[in-house]
Amino acid sequence: MIATMSSASTRAAGSVGVVETQYADLPGPVHLDCGRELSRVRVAYETYGTLSAQRDNVLLVCHALSGDAHAAGESSGPRESTRDGFGAEDRDGSAGKGLGWWDGMIGPGKAFDTDRFFVVSTNLLGGCAGTTGPSSIDPETGRPFGADFPVVTVADMVRTERALLDVLGIERLAAVAGGSLGGMQALQWAVLYPDQVDAVVMIASTHALHPQGLSWNAIARDSIMRDPDWQGGQYYGTGRKPDAGMGVARMVGHVTYLSQASMGDKFGRRLQSSDDVRYTITDAEFQVESYLRHQAETFVRRFDANTYLYTSRALTYFDLARQHGEGSLERALEHVRARTLLIAFTSDWLYPPQASQEIHDALESTGKPVELHVIDAPYGHDCFLLEEARQTPLIRAFLNLEEAP
Amino acid sequence: MIATMSSASTRAAGSVGVVETQYADLPGPVHLDCGRELSRVRVAYETYGTLSAQRDNVLLVCHALSGDAHAAGESSGPRESTRDGFGAEDRDGSAGKGLGWWDGMIGPGKAFDTDRFFVVSTNLLGGCAGTTGPSSIDPETGRPFGADFPVVTVADMVRTERALLDVLGIERLAAVAGGSLGGMQALQWAVLYPDQVDAVVMIASTHALHPQGLSWNAIARDSIMRDPDWQGGQYYGTGRKPDAGMGVARMVGHVTYLSQASMGDKFGRRLQSSDDVRYTITDAEFQVESYLRHQAETFVRRFDANTYLYTSRALTYFDLARQHGEGSLERALEHVRARTLLIAFTSDWLYPPQASQEIHDALESTGKPVELHVIDAPYGHDCFLLEEARQTPLIRAFLNLEEAP
Repeated sequence: MIATMSSASTRAAGSVGVVETQYADLPGPVHLDCGRELSRVRVAYETYGTLSAQRDNVLLVCHALSGDAHAAGESSGPRESTRDGFGAEDRDGSAGKGLGWWDGMIGPGKAFDTDRFFVVSTNLLGGCAGTTGPSSIDPETGRPFGADFPVVTVADMVRTERALLDVLGIERLAAVAGGSLGGMQALQWAVLYPDQVDAVVMIASTHALHPQGLSWNAIARDSIMRDPDWQGGQYYGTGRKPDAGMGVARMVGHVTYLSQASMGDKFGRRLQSSDDVRYTITDAEFQVESYLRHQAETFVRRFDANTYLYTSRALTYFDLARQHGEGSLERALEHVRARTLLIAFTSDWLYPPQASQEIHDALESTGKPVELHVIDAPYGHDCFLLEEARQTPLIRAFLNLEEAP
Repeated sequence: MIATMSSASTRAAGSVGVVETQYADLPGPVHLDCGRELSRVRVAYETYGTLSAQRDNVLLVCHALSGDAHAAGESSGPRESTRDGFGAEDRDGSAGKGLGWWDGMIGPGKAFDTDRFFVVSTNLLGGCAGTTGPSSIDPETGRPFGADFPVVTVADMVRTERALLDVLGIERLAAVAGGSLGGMQALQWAVLYPDQVDAVVMIASTHALHPQGLSWNAIARDSIMRDPDWQGGQYYGTGRKPDAGMGVARMVGHVTYLSQASMGDKFGRRLQSSDDVRYTITDAEFQVESYLRHQAETFVRRFDANTYLYTSRALTYFDLARQHGEGSLERALEHVRARTLLIAFTSDWLYPPQASQEIHDALESTGKPVELHVIDAPYGHDCFLLEEARQTPLIRAFLNLEEAP
């Protein structure tokens, strides 16, 4: 099973097929950490696999900063893929198919096995791909929220996911899984709803971003907000949007998702179009310069700048010890009842393994079942999107789909 | 000597005193790598110490991206210090005195000892602090060059320094020293003028920036050029300049000069002004966010955005193996006759020790005198500005000022 996972043909065989994004309107308001509430919240979601009669096989997948509800399978309409892992676009001929961002991990026989689980994936609160966010119409004004959208937290995202599952008639989660910001949501689930979560899979994530990570996010947000086309967040309908600033934000983010080693392997110092430099300030001279600009261009086409701001703010605020433990991570996690699988990657300097170790130790110190696997892999933070073959046996064993490797 | 170097009182005692920046107009044009030539080039410079009768005690100091000619002593006029190492502003009560950016290293009894050496420091070609650069008047048009300034290289900077020394009647360098981009210039001196350089001190530098470093520089430049106030580089006299974009560029740069550990020690996740978050997208919430904005604000007041672009481009182009060795670093350095001291810092991820090791190995393989010291210190790239007490004995021993430690 594991060995064949890495071949393209098997991956195609394990596809969940063509998927259509669905939408649900929440019947009640979402009460937010900031004290405000959001009414008439719509949530975009997809499901893969079959809900059991006992409704006991639900696995919720949570996405990272730039993802959306389309986690697996092919998109029903023409669209750009949100698989933005390093090189994901060209490595398996997926261009144009609109494959979900975690398609390598979700499907029959895959890590999150749809032969067993009913996988639910939602676009997070504040998003720009179907779920209510800053680009949505504020029912009170009839205009897009813009910067009047309330500041949301990871806990608010989880409350929204909880409300969607209520709409779907789902009480319990057999598991909740995510990487990066998605991993924050997964652990937040186990803290907010300890009696409703059996297992947490938290990948390349943290209980609180380190100060350098805060900095990258602050720079990205400032880059967007300093773009005059941001217009205080009310750029919708003006014909202008802060593409310049968000492009820079994306380039910063992109470099933090990679590693020095993987950038060296992929680009080196190769020049873009000649044997020698052309003495230009404005044009891309090195291949890596051109690559970053391309990343910026494709991202601004598909992503809303305000959603970037709100989501980035949420992930910098996330701090389980501060929010739930009066400064103690152990105390923050003391009511967790789920089993927890932590996966981290040696080359991930944005979400370093140390943070996963701290979560592991805090859970273990109070006797909770937890396992941590640090995978030695070179692709930086993007490993969680790329190292499918090595994560799969760990996750399948943890979810009792097969024997431990 | 070494032990007392770290106290503020000794540093004051070792000051070169109040210094005035001087200016020299080069008699002939500077022939540039790009094929163009620059006429009527002015160079800003300072000198510290006394030129010997034999003119054999000259030590040239080269500055990094954001420096200028004012390397040591107090400025004769009121001005902001260019000492922009991490915490340099507040650690020794230097605020307001306009101390030079390497004041801790240059002076009587210091690493670059003005009791022995006649130290010359220039603002580099393309600069914005007195030497001809993009903000200077183009003699052919009567208007500032802007983006019509020719693209310059590290070798062009060195040629300009060579021409200044000609004006000053100086033939040989007892030593040339610099950190970061300044270190590139130092080694470039030994390659371009092998018979005129006795010793090279190259600190926290490289023979060619790695692809991640190329990326940070590309992002910084793009941030400036995407700012509509950049106006294609012709912003002079318009009342607008790309402060927003250059502020972001500076924040990116600043984070790359530090380390995760030093940011953790200095800032942690401390909030700016309250015990809890205030749910704000626009305001600085964490202390590190406020710090970065402050760095951006102070930098844009004193630095020209086009100089940032040109200097950043020069340091990304720098690649000794490509320029002088047909791809071989060993061949590029085969004509070097200077003794070389290399210093690198364990936590410097922008200019990692590995590059210094490669330079060491290339020089050693052809039998040239070279020593490399990797200092275990936590402050990242900024170590070269901060770790004065530990660099000083190494440099003094290398320059035969005292016994090896």
